[in-house]
Amino acid sequence: MHSIIQNCLHGDLSDICEAAKSEGMTPEALSRNIIAGRTILLKNEAREYKPCVIGEGATVKINVNIGTSGVTCDPAKEMVKAKAAIQNGADAIMDLSTGGDLAAIRKEILKLGIPVGTVPIYEAVRRAGNVVDLTADILFSVILDQAKQGVDFMTLHCGVNLDVLDALTLDPRVMGVVSRGGSFHTAMMLSSGEENPLYKEYDYLLEILDEYEISLSLGDGMRPGAYVDSSKLAKSQEYLTLGKLARRAKDKGVQRMIEGPGHMDYNEISYNVKMIKEITDFAPLYLLGPLVTDIAPGYDHITGAIGGAAAACAGADFLCMVSPSEHLALPNVDDIIEGTRVCKVAAHVGDLSRRRDVELPRQAKMAEARKNLDWQAQYDLSLFGGHAKEIHDRDGECETCSMCGDLCAIKIVEKALEKKI
Amino acid sequence: MHSIIQNCLHGDLSDICEAAKSEGMTPEALSRNIIAGRTILLKNEAREYKPCVIGEGATVKINVNIGTSGVTCDPAKEMVKAKAAIQNGADAIMDLSTGGDLAAIRKEILKLGIPVGTVPIYEAVRRAGNVVDLTADILFSVILDQAKQGVDFMTLHCGVNLDVLDALTLDPRVMGVVSRGGSFHTAMMLSSGEENPLYKEYDYLLEILDEYEISLSLGDGMRPGAYVDSSKLAKSQEYLTLGKLARRAKDKGVQRMIEGPGHMDYNEISYNVKMIKEITDFAPLYLLGPLVTDIAPGYDHITGAIGGAAAACAGADFLCMVSPSEHLALPNVDDIIEGTRVCKVAAHVGDLSRRRDVELPRQAKMAEARKNLDWQAQYDLSLFGGHAKEIHDRDGECETCSMCGDLCAIKIVEKALEKKI
Repeated sequence: MHSIIQNCLHGDLSDICEAAKSEGMTPEALSRNIIAGRTILLKNEAREYKPCVIGEGATVKINVNIGTSGVTCDPAKEMVKAKAAIQNGADAIMDLSTGGDLAAIRKEILKLGIPVGTVPIYEAVRRAGNVVDLTADILFSVILDQAKQGVDFMTLHCGVNLDVLDALTLDPRVMGVVSRGGSFHTAMMLSSGEENPLYKEYDYLLEILDEYEISLSLGDGMRPGAYVDSSKLAKSQEYLTLGKLARRAKDKGVQRMIEGPGHMDYNEISYNVKMIKEITDFAPLYLLGPLVTDIAPGYDHITGAIGGAAAACAGADFLCMVSPSEHLALPNVDDIIEGTRVCKVAAHVGDLSRRRDVELPRQAKMAEARKNLDWQAQYDLSLFGGHAKEIHDRDGECETCSMCGDLCAIKIVEKALEKKI
Repeated sequence: MHSIIQNCLHGDLSDICEAAKSEGMTPEALSRNIIAGRTILLKNEAREYKPCVIGEGATVKINVNIGTSGVTCDPAKEMVKAKAAIQNGADAIMDLSTGGDLAAIRKEILKLGIPVGTVPIYEAVRRAGNVVDLTADILFSVILDQAKQGVDFMTLHCGVNLDVLDALTLDPRVMGVVSRGGSFHTAMMLSSGEENPLYKEYDYLLEILDEYEISLSLGDGMRPGAYVDSSKLAKSQEYLTLGKLARRAKDKGVQRMIEGPGHMDYNEISYNVKMIKEITDFAPLYLLGPLVTDIAPGYDHITGAIGGAAAACAGADFLCMVSPSEHLALPNVDDIIEGTRVCKVAAHVGDLSRRRDVELPRQAKMAEARKNLDWQAQYDLSLFGGHAKEIHDRDGECETCSMCGDLCAIKIVEKALEKKI
């Protein structure tokens, strides 16, 4: 079996043609980006679904996290959430379940027809029973099991190593470690005094990922969990490590992307994104947030959209949905829908910067539709046309909108111009 | 009677002391900014309410538009909206009513205890019966009537003049004129061939505003209504005019601010804000939007928050709430609440840039509260604490949140650290 990168290297572009077309790229251009490691293609050969291209040259994609927890475990509801996310624009789903029959839940989610990601260490901790009883063997066996099951991309916190713990000690943070995966690895290392097995046995990990054509998402275990922690050393230390690991993955023909923080000052987003890209050899960047303030719980989908749009314009390639219930509770279906739509808007703002050739004509058509008061055309061109129509029609269908009514600026100037002519 | 600017010039700081305190500024610093015209104080002497400072040195303020329309006219509901807006953080209310008994509606709104703005030409058109029958006399009599009634600031489209019409003809826009006030003035000029009376008789206008201590909001009648129109000449032509008018107002001791566009590419926001400030002698900038895409109707509060946060960080001083029903319908109460909160988040992101001395300690406290899983402290520090508590408690009150449950990263690392020690 040949990996996507290997096929590209050998000039066999058959498995990327459809993906290139969906992005409006030539297969040759996509192939060059994949070989350079600047773009990846999430596509597990074992399943049939629309391929998802992430990185340079592609539109900004969005991921939606769903999953049970120990407190709230209703797998059927998680399926409803996953479907709602896809309907509202999710390009990928990550199953972060930590409660219930994890393999069974994942099996259902893998039927959904889009790329599915996981964080294997969650299941590994459940299998071990306790984080301090977690071993490298358990972790690798979970990775293998999930790989065989057909998972497309995995968040693996390979960069949370002993050096990172040193940086955490040297430059402490108020909130310490807030990434769950990061916290498990930190606890393992603190408990055993030994190196993170994913870092220590990285070559073995790459072999598994290569065999099952799984994309590696290099997790940001040191993602700052607070605004005041955002410039502390641990984060930068981890990125330096991820930069080395990203190069090693590329050399082994394994597709990979980088996960990014977290909480960050708005004015620091652009240079952080550019710096992370540079450090990690321009690997695709998968961003959680960035959340630009800590004091808006309940509205973190908004702080995430503000940060996400800035990040996407600066070069981030893949945005993780932040729901209105972030920091507070497991999201419900409404949270998933709202969070997904808001994230989609942020990603679209990025596309307007990155893909002006495609996006400008759409903006021009929308302007024409508005000028002509052609509501159906407006809905057809909109990101969420059905929702827009509902709002417009709630005061009864009318030619203008119920805000301006007879004092519609568009109509007034049009009439005035007619008279002049 | 002496105006605020005149009192500051004479060293009488009595009427700005309270306002300075509420902003954490010294009266002397606020006085210097007011004299320089970089900051204004909305405070009609005729009424009792909390003063509102807008401009350099102050926090970013937000305005919420309410008002009846010809299609939907329920003044009681507009009062409910105004109160909901204030409860959720509105610093000022603009009454944009165009349907029903306009003076009576305004009378009620003026009782609300915060600054109230209007767009007098709306009432003038109603009084004239038709935009082509609108005369300078009618317009000035409405301005006088509203001034006597106690309105604090007025949007007056003084910069929509014959030069602007030339620019529109020379560099046409798909959507022409979308500002309602701009469209009325455009129609008047096209119909009569004469200059905009507010431009022609600007000195007389300034006399009225000075007499009643009304702040002038120099309206952006050429606000682009479409992404593809955002860099056309008419907008810049108007700003150049507003720059001259802003200087003349300052010389006459009239407080004024500038209204800004509109639809704009995300990457153009920062330099546009800085350029508008420079052109208008650093007058306070009141922004509508900026909306960074046209294709998200129903989610324009999000596109407005993305644009508004960028603008506030670049120097905008006053953000106008954009509701989820923008471009579609008159907002309902839920739209007003949601739009206000989202706008407040955007303004706060600006404050984090502008007022780090005040905002950083709040972020630090929030990080401590999160680390300690102290939920009450989190709600107390939050912009919308009650809303956050509702989300957290919906799965039952628990020590962690229902997303992470027993796998709470904060608790895991804390435990691991304890064992090591």
